[in-house]
Amino acid sequence: MLGWGGAGLALGAAAAGGTAAALRVGDDASPSASTGDAVPFHGAHQAGISTPVQDRLHFASFDVTTTDRAALIKLLQEWTAAAAAMTAGHEVGAGAISANEELPPDDTGEALGLKPSRLTLTFGVGPGLFEKDGKDRFGLKARRPQALIDLPVFPKDNLDPARSGGDLCVQACADDPQVAVHAIRNLARIAMGRASIRWSQLGFGKTSSTTPDAQTPRNMMGFKDGTRNIAGDDTARLDKHVWVGEKDGPGWMVGGSYLVARRIRMHIETWDRTSLAEQEDVFGRDKSEGAPVGKQREHDEPLLKAMKPDAHVRLAHPDSNNGVTILRRGYSFTDGTDGLGRLDAGLFFIAYQRDVRDGFVPLQTNLARNDALNEYIQHVGSAVFAVPPGVRDKGDWWGKALFA
Amino acid sequence: MLGWGGAGLALGAAAAGGTAAALRVGDDASPSASTGDAVPFHGAHQAGISTPVQDRLHFASFDVTTTDRAALIKLLQEWTAAAAAMTAGHEVGAGAISANEELPPDDTGEALGLKPSRLTLTFGVGPGLFEKDGKDRFGLKARRPQALIDLPVFPKDNLDPARSGGDLCVQACADDPQVAVHAIRNLARIAMGRASIRWSQLGFGKTSSTTPDAQTPRNMMGFKDGTRNIAGDDTARLDKHVWVGEKDGPGWMVGGSYLVARRIRMHIETWDRTSLAEQEDVFGRDKSEGAPVGKQREHDEPLLKAMKPDAHVRLAHPDSNNGVTILRRGYSFTDGTDGLGRLDAGLFFIAYQRDVRDGFVPLQTNLARNDALNEYIQHVGSAVFAVPPGVRDKGDWWGKALFA
Repeated sequence: MLGWGGAGLALGAAAAGGTAAALRVGDDASPSASTGDAVPFHGAHQAGISTPVQDRLHFASFDVTTTDRAALIKLLQEWTAAAAAMTAGHEVGAGAISANEELPPDDTGEALGLKPSRLTLTFGVGPGLFEKDGKDRFGLKARRPQALIDLPVFPKDNLDPARSGGDLCVQACADDPQVAVHAIRNLARIAMGRASIRWSQLGFGKTSSTTPDAQTPRNMMGFKDGTRNIAGDDTARLDKHVWVGEKDGPGWMVGGSYLVARRIRMHIETWDRTSLAEQEDVFGRDKSEGAPVGKQREHDEPLLKAMKPDAHVRLAHPDSNNGVTILRRGYSFTDGTDGLGRLDAGLFFIAYQRDVRDGFVPLQTNLARNDALNEYIQHVGSAVFAVPPGVRDKGDWWGKALFA
Repeated sequence: MLGWGGAGLALGAAAAGGTAAALRVGDDASPSASTGDAVPFHGAHQAGISTPVQDRLHFASFDVTTTDRAALIKLLQEWTAAAAAMTAGHEVGAGAISANEELPPDDTGEALGLKPSRLTLTFGVGPGLFEKDGKDRFGLKARRPQALIDLPVFPKDNLDPARSGGDLCVQACADDPQVAVHAIRNLARIAMGRASIRWSQLGFGKTSSTTPDAQTPRNMMGFKDGTRNIAGDDTARLDKHVWVGEKDGPGWMVGGSYLVARRIRMHIETWDRTSLAEQEDVFGRDKSEGAPVGKQREHDEPLLKAMKPDAHVRLAHPDSNNGVTILRRGYSFTDGTDGLGRLDAGLFFIAYQRDVRDGFVPLQTNLARNDALNEYIQHVGSAVFAVPPGVRDKGDWWGKALFA
């Protein structure tokens, strides 16, 4: 993995010259000294999915508290305007230094003077927006995509409801945590009286990389994670596995994707007492280089038969799952210690896919039953969201087609 | 504040060529491609105090669980060796890829391939090491410095015992959070059976800067914080206010310092509803530039009389506290949301001083009684530690003089 020094610039340049389907529109992101590392907000797809992974995450799940459809729509319009401003490195509204100083500033100000830091804000809607407790809250029930299922309960799941679900989500990724935290905070503030944060998660460390040339980062177990992930310029695989196509429908989701988030706690102390041989058997890779069993280099084609039947890499491989492939975009987390002095740490797993039923669900069904890694991990949070296509222009907003 | 792109390299160069009192000894940190941003571990003072502030923090407080003095000494020796290795960018012990793969690796491995990232590990001992529940646990009671007082209870304190105190502490600072987290995790692992983590805190964002030329970062309230802090090359002020002198004693603390840590939660939602005028009155600075009331530039000499009597900057100024000056090294934190959907965010305040009785105690006594900021913040965690001088050479270890 590249260190801090040069990585930001290198990835920034890659993003600017990259092949992402984003389309710069309008002149709201006028050139300035500070916008060199901005990721375009407008485009066919939302940024933050195939965008080369940034260093930090602040993910927030919201409960919608208003029952008024018009108020919800207004919130989404205000969020979209704020997101376009913040990703371009600007402040929300009139900024932190408003003309009328007898009013609270529109922007909370802690990102003043910071660069855009490749901030992306990716928006999704959860099952509860379409129907909750049997109620069609916003007249959207008939528009729920079939692919937006309620996730089944998997073996060994130990989900905390307070860390699961949500009506709306925003995934904020940036190379500067203060920029990511600032974005979620200001969106939460805008939402006041209409939606409130249900849970949020900070993450760090690029545990999976969508940047082909960067070295694969290591997870909290010390292993390289995400070696065979889908990269941002692989449009064939993105179209096949990630973006909702015209045939998939519904229309308002074409160009979008489905997001599964899982908070996966690692039993760090147990893992740390496990022999190197056992650790390598569990993953099916060697720890140093990350090479598959019997191979020399990380990116060598894995020989699945050479691995133990319950090795993680073998079980997660498309060949063991009828070709199932997802785009992973997870981050490591460390949320202090639990009451027993154990590190509350692990992987905040985020996956994007064209259809959850052909992606995460069969994959996790297989892994939850058979993966040797299960002895050392536990899924403690879970959520699924439909992520609409990108905001096309200034007249467009998050979810506009859904409410049309 | 500099963005991610160039800041790491720039600060790394500053550290390497800086004027800190650190002294490179031995050849255990042999030059390699990856050690360009290492901060020397050995020296007259511990690194991590006057060292230019790194971007990330992982602070851990430990309870000593062994009752055996020899076991405690062995732990400190093992910790010192591990700290020297990790700050130089090396792994702990035989590393993550041990020769005997039937044993657990010595190092957990998640920092393999990462740069030293200016990691510093700063060690301290709390009051409980000298006496706990009336017991002289390790024969150290007579060696307790008079300056290491139990902090008084301040007005409006709302301290959580689970986030306060501790027998030992390690402050890990680095430009890469994975490096800081890796360091604390491996120290906790080494401590197994002898000490365990009581509480820990992650932080980000350089809320105060000891780097004179860098722009002053903003805290979570959107204001520049730490404008008049002591900088790393100001040896006169460091000697006067930070380092324990020969006349101060005890001998084992000469060249050391005293650390006060306070977890200060900000009532973010209330603050965000406050007018710009009120916010600026509370701080005594303008929000945009950070200039003191009536002045133009951030670093202009403040005219205290021009500020409201309860303005934070006025009350915290040495002129309002008989010259009291501390070195601040705090970090912003965001630990998700509380049960009410409010952001659990604020400042993890860290201060170093020559004597707590002449530093934090009088200052906080004044602030806790009078500061306008108190309406928007609450102290929810607290700890104090004696930070010994630096480890001089390979034969030395954290606290050796204390146990001599």
